[in-house]
Amino acid sequence: MDFNISTPFHCELPVQLRFSDLDTLGHVNNSVYLNLFDLGKSNYFERAAGERQDWNNVNVVIANINCNFLHETHFDEPLVVKTQVKHIGNKSFTVLQVLQNTATGEIKCACEQVMVYLDPETRTPAPLPQHWRDCFAALEGRQL
Amino acid sequence: MDFNISTPFHCELPVQLRFSDLDTLGHVNNSVYLNLFDLGKSNYFERAAGERQDWNNVNVVIANINCNFLHETHFDEPLVVKTQVKHIGNKSFTVLQVLQNTATGEIKCACEQVMVYLDPETRTPAPLPQHWRDCFAALEGRQL
Amino acid sequence: MDFNISTPFHCELPVQLRFSDLDTLGHVNNSVYLNLFDLGKSNYFERAAGERQDWNNVNVVIANINCNFLHETHFDEPLVVKTQVKHIGNKSFTVLQVLQNTATGEIKCACEQVMVYLDPETRTPAPLPQHWRDCFAALEGRQL
Amino acid sequence: MDFNISTPFHCELPVQLRFSDLDTLGHVNNSVYLNLFDLGKSNYFERAAGERQDWNNVNVVIANINCNFLHETHFDEPLVVKTQVKHIGNKSFTVLQVLQNTATGEIKCACEQVMVYLDPETRTPAPLPQHWRDCFAALEGRQL
Repeated sequence: MDFNISTPFHCELPVQLRFSDLDTLGHVNNSVYLNLFDLGKSNYFERAAGERQDWNNVNVVIANINCNFLHETHFDEPLVVKTQVKHIGNKSFTVLQVLQNTATGEIKCACEQVMVYLDPETRTPAPLPQHWRDCFAALEGRQL
Repeated sequence: MDFNISTPFHCELPVQLRFSDLDTLGHVNNSVYLNLFDLGKSNYFERAAGERQDWNNVNVVIANINCNFLHETHFDEPLVVKTQVKHIGNKSFTVLQVLQNTATGEIKCACEQVMVYLDPETRTPAPLPQHWRDCFAALEGRQL
Repeated sequence: MDFNISTPFHCELPVQLRFSDLDTLGHVNNSVYLNLFDLGKSNYFERAAGERQDWNNVNVVIANINCNFLHETHFDEPLVVKTQVKHIGNKSFTVLQVLQNTATGEIKCACEQVMVYLDPETRTPAPLPQHWRDCFAALEGRQL
Repeated sequence: MDFNISTPFHCELPVQLRFSDLDTLGHVNNSVYLNLFDLGKSNYFERAAGERQDWNNVNVVIANINCNFLHETHFDEPLVVKTQVKHIGNKSFTVLQVLQNTATGEIKCACEQVMVYLDPETRTPAPLPQHWRDCFAALEGRQL
């Protein structure tokens, strides 16, 4: 899949690797990327929420993950996860994330995730509340 | 993404969960699914290889992962990973996997992975050797 | 520390390794042993509890872990975790566990853990209820 | 076990938690502490080595881990791992580490690890080379 990663990212989080992230070849295991992307999403939601406290109880689940693994990652590389909300649908929204070496600019992995909003009571899919839409749009600096 | 999972699977591996796989809601974390799928792929390659020893040094990398998360998974569920090679290209092949509750038949996650074959010497993409193609086709019981 | 592991074990659980358990030398990472021991303890509590349902909500925390790492563990080894309650104090009890290769008998790791019982209401240390003491003694086949 | 943690630490590393570190109660899983302590040890060895490059290939294994779990750790806590070499024997040395909340000063976990030096050729226990002893003593600012 070709991801368009040309839209600027407004949320960036340095991430710390661990020895246990490495496989027998000394490369970061693919599953670890998802753990790092989880951190990036959490950080994004916090920033988008600002002073609103109800964001702590975000009721979302991941419906789909689509990741391109572009380059192997080693232990000593300085890394950031960059996160953006790319698109908002009715009951779901799409998050685009990359893991990038900040020294070389090399993108290790680009990942799109479809997240579904759940009604806090019923835990079934429900329309994304307007104030979330507004928060995401404000952080992205554009209509979504 | 809609996966066609109607083609029968010829490789199935029971997998064991751990407490540390669970998130704060008691659901298996998404990244764990990739660890379980790794086990399934390894088991598939072993079965496909049969007595050939050179399969121990499989030179493949994952280029893309595309996962649909369909139902949440809990600690006590009896689970298998089912694996098939779905398609063989020139330097890559596509693996389809599902994580399934064997008691209920519920499919938790369906995942397609594009794997790229690397030349053992240069570690750059190279055509998949014929004997691999034959082994995969034999296990699948059809042309690939 | 020298552990006395001569008392027979009455609870034994086969455990499954994952690729992500291996470090860059192809050995199972030390932290993984704790995940496997967690599985073993859970299995022990289930067996000890028998038909009693209240064991599902075991209120215990680990106060101390003391592990001897005796031999490195590789991916293909057939492994079991053996678990016993070794000693019961007032508000705590001691669990002894080993990770063992079933083909060679080699013990990879021997570990003692001190677990503290918490009052379900206050979540502070409290005397271990008598019915737990009885269940442990019954499984061990001796006074504790 | 009572650890004497009154000797000042000269090596301190901020560590980053992940969602997948949390168990179903929202506490950091015990095994994760070992992953964080691994990071701390690596950082310690780097600092002790200074410009010496041969430290990259440290040939040590962990023989024993003894951890006191003192307080539960939550996701949002600011954490550091503090590391010191406490004692040097002939073929082994003892590392003391704590995980501490930097805002409250609360010590979450105190851990002693016995590490054994391996001869790089034979991978059997061997006397710790003098230059390592000197590096450790220099970082600790005292005879070891």
